[in-house]
Amino acid sequence: MTSDGNKTMKTMSASYVIGLDYGTNSVRALLVNTANGRELGTAVWNYEQGDAGILLSRDPNLARQHPGDYLKGAERAIRGALRDARRQDPKFKPEQVIGMGVDTTGSTPIPVDREGQALALRPKFARDLAAMAWLWKDHTGVAEAAEITALARECRPQYLAKCGGVYSSEWFFSKLLHCRRTAPKVFEAAYSWVECADWIPAMLTGTAAPERLKVGVCAAGHKAMYHDAWGGYPDAEFLGKLDPKLGALRARLAPKAYAVDQAVGGLTADWARRTGLPAGIPVAVGAFDAHLGGVGCGIGPGTLVKIIGTSTCDMMVVPSDQELADIPGLCGIVPGSILPGYYGLEAGQSAVGDIFNWFVNFIQPGGPKAGSHAALSQGAAKLAPGESGLLALDWNNGNRTILVDQRLTGLMLGQTLYTTPAEIYRALIEATAFGALTIINRFEEYGVPVRQIVNCGGIAEKNPLVMQLYADVTGRPMRVSRSAQTCALGAAVAGAVVAGAHPGFSAAQRAMTGLKPREFRPNAAAHRVYRELYPLYRQVHDAFGTSEWQGNLQGVMKALLEIRGRVRR
Amino acid sequence: MTSDGNKTMKTMSASYVIGLDYGTNSVRALLVNTANGRELGTAVWNYEQGDAGILLSRDPNLARQHPGDYLKGAERAIRGALRDARRQDPKFKPEQVIGMGVDTTGSTPIPVDREGQALALRPKFARDLAAMAWLWKDHTGVAEAAEITALARECRPQYLAKCGGVYSSEWFFSKLLHCRRTAPKVFEAAYSWVECADWIPAMLTGTAAPERLKVGVCAAGHKAMYHDAWGGYPDAEFLGKLDPKLGALRARLAPKAYAVDQAVGGLTADWARRTGLPAGIPVAVGAFDAHLGGVGCGIGPGTLVKIIGTSTCDMMVVPSDQELADIPGLCGIVPGSILPGYYGLEAGQSAVGDIFNWFVNFIQPGGPKAGSHAALSQGAAKLAPGESGLLALDWNNGNRTILVDQRLTGLMLGQTLYTTPAEIYRALIEATAFGALTIINRFEEYGVPVRQIVNCGGIAEKNPLVMQLYADVTGRPMRVSRSAQTCALGAAVAGAVVAGAHPGFSAAQRAMTGLKPREFRPNAAAHRVYRELYPLYRQVHDAFGTSEWQGNLQGVMKALLEIRGRVRR
Repeated sequence: MTSDGNKTMKTMSASYVIGLDYGTNSVRALLVNTANGRELGTAVWNYEQGDAGILLSRDPNLARQHPGDYLKGAERAIRGALRDARRQDPKFKPEQVIGMGVDTTGSTPIPVDREGQALALRPKFARDLAAMAWLWKDHTGVAEAAEITALARECRPQYLAKCGGVYSSEWFFSKLLHCRRTAPKVFEAAYSWVECADWIPAMLTGTAAPERLKVGVCAAGHKAMYHDAWGGYPDAEFLGKLDPKLGALRARLAPKAYAVDQAVGGLTADWARRTGLPAGIPVAVGAFDAHLGGVGCGIGPGTLVKIIGTSTCDMMVVPSDQELADIPGLCGIVPGSILPGYYGLEAGQSAVGDIFNWFVNFIQPGGPKAGSHAALSQGAAKLAPGESGLLALDWNNGNRTILVDQRLTGLMLGQTLYTTPAEIYRALIEATAFGALTIINRFEEYGVPVRQIVNCGGIAEKNPLVMQLYADVTGRPMRVSRSAQTCALGAAVAGAVVAGAHPGFSAAQRAMTGLKPREFRPNAAAHRVYRELYPLYRQVHDAFGTSEWQGNLQGVMKALLEIRGRVRR
Repeated sequence: MTSDGNKTMKTMSASYVIGLDYGTNSVRALLVNTANGRELGTAVWNYEQGDAGILLSRDPNLARQHPGDYLKGAERAIRGALRDARRQDPKFKPEQVIGMGVDTTGSTPIPVDREGQALALRPKFARDLAAMAWLWKDHTGVAEAAEITALARECRPQYLAKCGGVYSSEWFFSKLLHCRRTAPKVFEAAYSWVECADWIPAMLTGTAAPERLKVGVCAAGHKAMYHDAWGGYPDAEFLGKLDPKLGALRARLAPKAYAVDQAVGGLTADWARRTGLPAGIPVAVGAFDAHLGGVGCGIGPGTLVKIIGTSTCDMMVVPSDQELADIPGLCGIVPGSILPGYYGLEAGQSAVGDIFNWFVNFIQPGGPKAGSHAALSQGAAKLAPGESGLLALDWNNGNRTILVDQRLTGLMLGQTLYTTPAEIYRALIEATAFGALTIINRFEEYGVPVRQIVNCGGIAEKNPLVMQLYADVTGRPMRVSRSAQTCALGAAVAGAVVAGAHPGFSAAQRAMTGLKPREFRPNAAAHRVYRELYPLYRQVHDAFGTSEWQGNLQGVMKALLEIRGRVRR
């Protein structure tokens, strides 16, 4: 009776928040206890349109999504999470949900009309790829990105200094400008463009009309050159030089951007009905999945959070009152983009899991069974560092940090007549580990020490070999976030903060986030070999990736053979 | 009756020769009509020992063969060919065989005793890898090759000038020196070392004792720095500096080497009994498979013969009375090594078919069925040049010409997240075509014009896509030898010459060799793209393969993407 009574008490007194997490292929809702981070219910809804949710064309650079999937997904995923919660605890009631946060992929801009409705939802544009959400990994704006970079270098170097010196084809204005150039009818029809991360909270709270829209500083700062120092988004003159119509659009972009400790508004009655949540609960300002994933991993000063999935996002925070140089190659340094009161620093690798998936799904070495991730990982785990003689670059989808160059491609060298799939798989993992180390080094070179590394995401959860190789290559211990759903958890933390469950993020993170007990410690012998291999990676990296490097690479293959000869058991 | 009578007349009057061709995995006997090159019978015997005839160890550089396989193979293959001939023409009689030629792989040296018997045939050494034949592709002597090169550079530069400037780990003295260093007991027990190409004819004619041995100039000149200009093999002082015991061995090497128009001797009664051939028929001086393959392809001035199998051998001849510069990177320029009266020029690629086989057998993309040569060729044939964005180096087994560097490895770049096995397969073929073009260019740069290209070997016979891509890449028509067994045919031609069936090689080749009617003509549009791709190959080739190249390779991936964007249909 006492125990039952306690349980009832706890359940009755517990409050919950929803984290709504829009990924590349699906949306997840996570119901989290605000007191301890316990995840009571969750549900995933796969987007219905396109190929696993992605609309493709013959152009391999194109990747779009239908905004209708986002709305339907909110409804389905939230209802599913509430159902799941009731299964876990029959006494749970939706009325216990007190707030909500939203994270999405990005930069994923959506053309909208005067009311903030997505053009894609109109019959006229329902099948027009240019009217869809331009998914983060859409690279159709490569030429436009180069144009923006060139113009900013010439007349607004300050814009580039905060986003790593190069404006990417993955980002907001590259996509808008490409639309203007290649699909002018859609561009004309769009009153404005809204990041997916801003559009979802706005739709849920009825604040989507551009003049009411409350945008997040995360998307604006990291992908759209927004900064308070120059009054927000890039000025109309600059945008107008790229294209007069882009310049005209400037007035219809939000005047100010907010951190995730602000609420956008309250859930509308209509959305309360559709989802089963209480009307009026606050919805936090939206942010990118990775950034709220950082929050869900317990990010704080000195902690590097790596979200490792198809690509990675590598994040750190530095107190806003601290002196901080511009760091070349970072995707951005944006005050408040991860945590209020801190600079959010974002780096990343354009492909990690996607490279392993490419090898497994496109090359299928040995056939579907022999070439599974599990089988290849098992084979790769048996190899010693350097034993394969292989060295790869992790550029199958370009290089985000530190080169900020999408027009780079994969490379593998060291193949003999006996090279095996497991050796290649391991070399691909090692390549991504070398890429990870390059990012760590870049942070530290610019005065941001990395004292702890917390990993999360599918790869960190599922593949201990990857974590061990990351530890061995970097010479640093790897920890994994306790929650397997850190992005959704981070969104939920934001929901808890805007609902007033905690006085701020620091307290909310302490209460709601944590680490798994297992620590992947670097193996000293393996690390010694990787300390020899990394300079070879850097040589090839710099030779193919930079214009400054001068030399020849004759030593690379020979050094690999020399190491191979030494380590072969 | 008349027709029957004629046929009988012809059969009765016809004379035949045997070409005995020792490959990497098997030995073939070919019975050829001396008047018209008609191949009346053939048989192949697969070596019994090791992995497809090759003795391997954990060291991936090691590749040996058991000499016992060679002897058993001679018997089985010749008997098989005679049986086959009788099936084709019941009136055929072994007495019609008037001569014989032998070709083998090389450099494949065999340690022998005072009688010329292979040490491996003694029980004591029957399982000792060092006592076996050191197969051409054994690269264990890499360090020794470098040592020989360094010493020759210092004190005998003339030795290197005739073999491309670098002494290879695949060659005679690298292997002997490596044996001396790593298996001194075998080296001590060996009275001398004999090339497989010399050992077989010697065994067949009872002339194997080192003082009776009649060696071919082909093996000696191309792989053992033999040249009349300095009195044959390298001098004892030079060899003694490498190792005193190697210096001492010099006196036990043959004083003079001969071209293939000389007979070694007559078939012994014992071998006549074992093979079913007439005793006493002349056996020509042995030569390498490729060189006699050149003869079987009708090699003559201006004709480049490419033997394309696991690796390639690229050969040309230049009249001995013509001025000829040393050509850097060639495996050798040796008077009489292919045809008497001509310089034999040998170049080659360390792996061609072996690279395709590696991809099919080791990587097995898509599984055994989807990843067959036929399926991949079919997929690759559908692609346009440049469409994949891939670029590969053909160095999975090192680079023979023009870099003469075994310590190089494969490279592929341009991979995206969508790269397919067929694209990789095509890129591997293209890489070998670029390698082929590099060799053609090297010949022409040094005043040896290439007016016709005749291909032979398994790849040329079986894969029209390879031939078409070679035409498209080089911009030159590709022809294929009429005979599918050019090496054995060339050996048979030598047999015909030593038997006196023709006054010399020119007449014998005219009578006995020819081309297939199909000509692979270069497609002009494809060639235009390859003219853009080849300089990119050369950049990567020179950056990784030479010490002189200075620069960066940042343009390579971008150029490939630019071409891909242009050619994608």
